[in-house]
Amino acid sequence: MTTTPSTHLTAMRSATPLVQNITNFVAMNVMANVMLAAGAAPAMVHAREEGAEFTAIASALSINIGTLDAEWADCMALAAEAAQTTGTPWVLDPVAVGATGLRRDTGTRLLNYKPTVIRGNASEILALAGSAASGRGVDSGDPVEAAEQGARALAEAQSCVVAVTGEVDFITDGTRSARVANGHATMPLITALGCSLTGIVAAFVAANDDAFDATVAALAFYGAAGEIAATNSNGPGSFQVAFLDALHAITADQLDQMANITTA
Amino acid sequence: MTTTPSTHLTAMRSATPLVQNITNFVAMNVMANVMLAAGAAPAMVHAREEGAEFTAIASALSINIGTLDAEWADCMALAAEAAQTTGTPWVLDPVAVGATGLRRDTGTRLLNYKPTVIRGNASEILALAGSAASGRGVDSGDPVEAAEQGARALAEAQSCVVAVTGEVDFITDGTRSARVANGHATMPLITALGCSLTGIVAAFVAANDDAFDATVAALAFYGAAGEIAATNSNGPGSFQVAFLDALHAITADQLDQMANITTA
Amino acid sequence: MTTTPSTHLTAMRSATPLVQNITNFVAMNVMANVMLAAGAAPAMVHAREEGAEFTAIASALSINIGTLDAEWADCMALAAEAAQTTGTPWVLDPVAVGATGLRRDTGTRLLNYKPTVIRGNASEILALAGSAASGRGVDSGDPVEAAEQGARALAEAQSCVVAVTGEVDFITDGTRSARVANGHATMPLITALGCSLTGIVAAFVAANDDAFDATVAALAFYGAAGEIAATNSNGPGSFQVAFLDALHAITADQLDQMANITTA
Repeated sequence: MTTTPSTHLTAMRSATPLVQNITNFVAMNVMANVMLAAGAAPAMVHAREEGAEFTAIASALSINIGTLDAEWADCMALAAEAAQTTGTPWVLDPVAVGATGLRRDTGTRLLNYKPTVIRGNASEILALAGSAASGRGVDSGDPVEAAEQGARALAEAQSCVVAVTGEVDFITDGTRSARVANGHATMPLITALGCSLTGIVAAFVAANDDAFDATVAALAFYGAAGEIAATNSNGPGSFQVAFLDALHAITADQLDQMANITTA
Repeated sequence: MTTTPSTHLTAMRSATPLVQNITNFVAMNVMANVMLAAGAAPAMVHAREEGAEFTAIASALSINIGTLDAEWADCMALAAEAAQTTGTPWVLDPVAVGATGLRRDTGTRLLNYKPTVIRGNASEILALAGSAASGRGVDSGDPVEAAEQGARALAEAQSCVVAVTGEVDFITDGTRSARVANGHATMPLITALGCSLTGIVAAFVAANDDAFDATVAALAFYGAAGEIAATNSNGPGSFQVAFLDALHAITADQLDQMANITTA
Repeated sequence: MTTTPSTHLTAMRSATPLVQNITNFVAMNVMANVMLAAGAAPAMVHAREEGAEFTAIASALSINIGTLDAEWADCMALAAEAAQTTGTPWVLDPVAVGATGLRRDTGTRLLNYKPTVIRGNASEILALAGSAASGRGVDSGDPVEAAEQGARALAEAQSCVVAVTGEVDFITDGTRSARVANGHATMPLITALGCSLTGIVAAFVAANDDAFDATVAALAFYGAAGEIAATNSNGPGSFQVAFLDALHAITADQLDQMANITTA
């Protein structure tokens, strides 16, 4: 990473990027609040009748296949195609992509539209990369390390950035790679914080040209806010509250001091 | 305004009005919590197969076009028609009505069923009023003042109350008009607080005959609770928590003391 | 009840059961957070294209008809049928089942697939049991006591456990019956806490063979967490936060000390 995380945070907050999110029903509210607290402008627009039309005015698009059905899959494909056509960066969150046939098909279909970044847990990245994965649902049965080779292969094949998130995140664009060791053990106890992170990655990528550096910065930012939240909470309920406060309060200087990034 | 805000709050809490809300996926949970905390009885019923049937037993209806698609638009029209037929008051929240064709069409279609109140930001009211508006999504690119003339015209044409909300809210029924200067700068950082306000307006209108006065009272109540929340919070996460507490705790006397209402 | 509530809590937390939830839009986020905080692994999977496929890998299924439409009703039936076929325990939450024709039909249809547990308020249980009920929506117009006879009849006819929740819960399997007097008056002021309880019941039933005892334990656990939350909050906003913290923090010993269970 050749830039400081704070460069990316400051650029994102200055741009207040309008990010279109096609996400699952569980995540919509918390994802919008996370993005607003961080300084972005989220818009939850997913209907087939207007999704692609909206993509044309958005600065970035995020697609999350969490609560999928056939119609939503169509709208995701239309929006992803619109993003590819207009050169709008977009981020794919392949939730539980290995769990059912519909998810496997949708994952493969969306890869055709060349996501800028793919963010998932190890099981999801392994499933997308074509390896046998052990995910049974939204949680990951595989450690991040197990997915590093698959992530590199996927990034090369797709010419995109792949971020495998877990206790220590792994990010690669096929050539460069990095690890981010920020975050806190309470985060997986709160639903949709992973989904919401995908929106933060989209906001950072919208405001910065280098998608690899922007993704690394977004992950460090998110994890650092989690560390701050942990010191101000007593469980998953108060953590979520403190986390939104921290996303809003964290300064560029704090981020650079707290970021725990290493080249991989 | 010829009545005190507290008159309306007390009447609403005494009636515990059953309010049917056809709203967006982002807002459903927080809107229900906001309405419960304030003292109303929200019901989130939107299906084509039962929406209009439910309207017949509700005391008021609110319709929010936030996460719209063609089928939802149909159900909204059916419910609005049922409300018009039975004389049930209903409130329209035209989220991002100018942003896409589907939204413009749905906005025009719903106006046919004569909403009792229309509540939106300046860009949305301008779009509904037929003026060129600068809204790019759910946030407003126009100041409240820019929409005052449009709001008056819309209120006259529709024989309804129009509330333009922002830093200082503007409310008019075409003849009377008022400004409400309550609220806090953190409120736009929390998703769906505007949507939830529409449900509060519906609850107040359900319990009071004068829709103009009831709307003004609802806006003052909501803003006052925001002011209380601001003194008990450190960012958007804790604000949302303190806001729900304040909606529940605020007394009739407090509301009259805090209400900042002027004739416009 | 022949086992201690803590036996069931400990078994559930050890198993971390994967529970598929087909629930309403209002409840999805809070229900997932409630289940994660308690120690279960929730998955919100409802699409017709994958619902039944997912049921085959889940340890339990919960179905809540809160925001129903015809297509969702179909998916619920498919998943319930899959659960019956594979012997997976499943819990029915018949939200406002008496309010509209669609709800009455869906309730009757789902009973064909033999739920393991039915959890509802008094009006809902009365409506399912075929008696005249006074529910106007999601809240209960009838006291728990009024539904005890109907609950016993329903449990016998369906060979299932029926839990009528309210100020004091009533649980029966037709032969045995118990009352649980845990909980707090603030709980009905927070939307979807009843829906979320259904997921907790499903998690307990997934991890324990005796569905009657598991249901009683789940209700005592939930109510005890509510009592802890009440001592750490000032209204419905802070209650919800403290409740998630309490669900996570409560120990097996605390549960046995706090549980207020009597044979009925």
